[in-house]
Amino acid sequence: MNVSKRGREIQASPIRKLKPYADAAKAKGIKVYHLNIGDPDIPMPGPVLETFHNWSQPVLAYGPAQGALELRQAVTRYFANYNIPLEADDVLITCGGSEAIHFTFSVIGDVGDEVIIPEPYYTNYNGYAAFAGLRIVPLPLSVENGFRLPPAEAIEALITPRTKAILLCSPNNPTGTVYTPEELDRVVALVKKHDLFLVGDEVYKEFIYDGRRHKSILEYEGIRERVVVIDSISKRFSCCGARIGMIITRNKDVYAAALKFAQARLCPPSVEQMAALAAYNMPMSYFADIRAEYDRRRNVLYEGLKDIPGLVIRKPEGAFYVIVRLPVKDVEHFAVWLLSDFSLDGQTVMIAPAPGFYATASQGTDEARLAYVINENDLRKAVRVFRAALEKYQAVQG
Amino acid sequence: MNVSKRGREIQASPIRKLKPYADAAKAKGIKVYHLNIGDPDIPMPGPVLETFHNWSQPVLAYGPAQGALELRQAVTRYFANYNIPLEADDVLITCGGSEAIHFTFSVIGDVGDEVIIPEPYYTNYNGYAAFAGLRIVPLPLSVENGFRLPPAEAIEALITPRTKAILLCSPNNPTGTVYTPEELDRVVALVKKHDLFLVGDEVYKEFIYDGRRHKSILEYEGIRERVVVIDSISKRFSCCGARIGMIITRNKDVYAAALKFAQARLCPPSVEQMAALAAYNMPMSYFADIRAEYDRRRNVLYEGLKDIPGLVIRKPEGAFYVIVRLPVKDVEHFAVWLLSDFSLDGQTVMIAPAPGFYATASQGTDEARLAYVINENDLRKAVRVFRAALEKYQAVQG
Repeated sequence: MNVSKRGREIQASPIRKLKPYADAAKAKGIKVYHLNIGDPDIPMPGPVLETFHNWSQPVLAYGPAQGALELRQAVTRYFANYNIPLEADDVLITCGGSEAIHFTFSVIGDVGDEVIIPEPYYTNYNGYAAFAGLRIVPLPLSVENGFRLPPAEAIEALITPRTKAILLCSPNNPTGTVYTPEELDRVVALVKKHDLFLVGDEVYKEFIYDGRRHKSILEYEGIRERVVVIDSISKRFSCCGARIGMIITRNKDVYAAALKFAQARLCPPSVEQMAALAAYNMPMSYFADIRAEYDRRRNVLYEGLKDIPGLVIRKPEGAFYVIVRLPVKDVEHFAVWLLSDFSLDGQTVMIAPAPGFYATASQGTDEARLAYVINENDLRKAVRVFRAALEKYQAVQG
Repeated sequence: MNVSKRGREIQASPIRKLKPYADAAKAKGIKVYHLNIGDPDIPMPGPVLETFHNWSQPVLAYGPAQGALELRQAVTRYFANYNIPLEADDVLITCGGSEAIHFTFSVIGDVGDEVIIPEPYYTNYNGYAAFAGLRIVPLPLSVENGFRLPPAEAIEALITPRTKAILLCSPNNPTGTVYTPEELDRVVALVKKHDLFLVGDEVYKEFIYDGRRHKSILEYEGIRERVVVIDSISKRFSCCGARIGMIITRNKDVYAAALKFAQARLCPPSVEQMAALAAYNMPMSYFADIRAEYDRRRNVLYEGLKDIPGLVIRKPEGAFYVIVRLPVKDVEHFAVWLLSDFSLDGQTVMIAPAPGFYATASQGTDEARLAYVINENDLRKAVRVFRAALEKYQAVQG
């Protein structure tokens, strides 16, 4: 009577490994600035709270497995603002973006099949690839060139007979890169040539700066059947805890298969689907203020770090993260040191070591993901603390 | 670019197959009494609604992967009422009982391993067994003896080197049977002897009649490490749409593995965990009225059907379902006929054909699951319509 092999082998969340050290620092009275996580602090749209306040149904009944029709229709109206025509039946509501990843991975391949993902990438893809028995084939990118995609040949070299899909997350967690139309074109040509699915994780769609426009892979009409988009309200509307995500696809077979998986888990949360409906009914202008707020924070972080000797950063283009190369040998050690052995005026910072975002062994050992999801004032303080820490750490480490 | 084999092969929900026929009947103006589903109609506890109404947090943030501590503590207090001592860290909150099944199946075995389940059984075990690659080995029970468990030897005959667990659902969906302490003892001895997990689906714990007491497998101190209980607030508190379930286990390895799966999907819904907390803070007397209400309905259904010639039913002991044998050759045909070709005074009934609850081929073809989850008055009408329908169907079918 032992726990399954997969239960023993599945990776524990690398982000959570540092939590005990942060707890210990806080217990000592140290203020910890969280540059490690991307939990939005911007208030939810007002109508979301009103949905809860006005709820009057005496029974929380099961809803449809694919999600409430009104919500799916509202999602299509949101995409219509981007000239992306969708039917409600192209949208399948999931229990968070996590479940959208889970169902997508389960539908695009079988055990032993492969999906190519530019690395560094969002850690939780690993857990769902493990669930589905998919092998993630990392496409190595680098901080020096801003995590841009390589030429087509470099991507093509990774394609094997087991390759089922290429997954692109844009705007990217953890790098902050937004793929250009030219980069997308390159990948679109490859999925056509090699008969692959193209999976897009577009949950950070609205977080994009400098007047850039997010191009969705849903805009490529010529590969309608190949496209599966993973989306979520978590970041877009500060509703991480609502657990409302979705799969968007015009491939009827993919939808039908995902729906069968969805039927097994009955339905997504009822009340929070109506909260999501309220959120999607917000005017598009809702995002402008939020974008401006994150843009200011982005500038604080970038301007505060860019001149540190030995630190490599380029200005993130989207999402609210950036991967930086640090002048340290072992970022995991540095991250623990920050929490255990350092403070400035009773303050320190928590960072996310980058190795957790790499599949390739010993990659990212001198890199960290920084999130700019604390208010501007705190972020300024955090940057000051971080600079001082780096200086001291380098002196201590020799 | 094809959908995965598992995506093509996973079973569509058998209960949903009949929905188009029901929709068509309703479109014709026919009143359909739903004896096919177990969605509670009893109002939720008042404090659950108040939780929504009083919600004031401006951001719905991620919570802990294992669920909110207050909720896990409240669950331990609920079990203390049954003299089952638990720690909060024995309880892992999931997105519905569905996810509890999913994680449990993923943790107790690897691809190709086996779990023994008395049949007929809850259909959705199939989907999660498919996800996990587990093989369900059905233990055939029969309506004639009230779906009682067979002697130990009959169960033991199914145990192979790949067997990892026996799963017992009690009170049982779909049969309405509640296993006696003697039946449980029999299985407990077997899991000890053969070094297996014992998985309990106890979501219907509170729905138990005739002064019976539900014995949980958590009460067997001698097999503490072997026990994994799947639980949910869906039926207990009329909160199916809340998607709050849980795994309860005192096996630290099982808990740790399930927690890693839980971390991959981040957290259960935040607001609805607080709603669940309000529900678990209800006094135990809350269940008495509900039990009495279902008991009256049980009597209406049982008394209304028991004297039909050729129909086999024994009084259900728990949950709010019963499997009956009908004097028909093909219950799927009968179920469609009820919706398409029959009505009495503009009314008909919808039933759940039993084959969907059997893994063994061609079993249950003359059986149906009936749920008594409509109000007493409607249930009386439904029974009258059902009797008339059976009579007519037999006449028509010769």
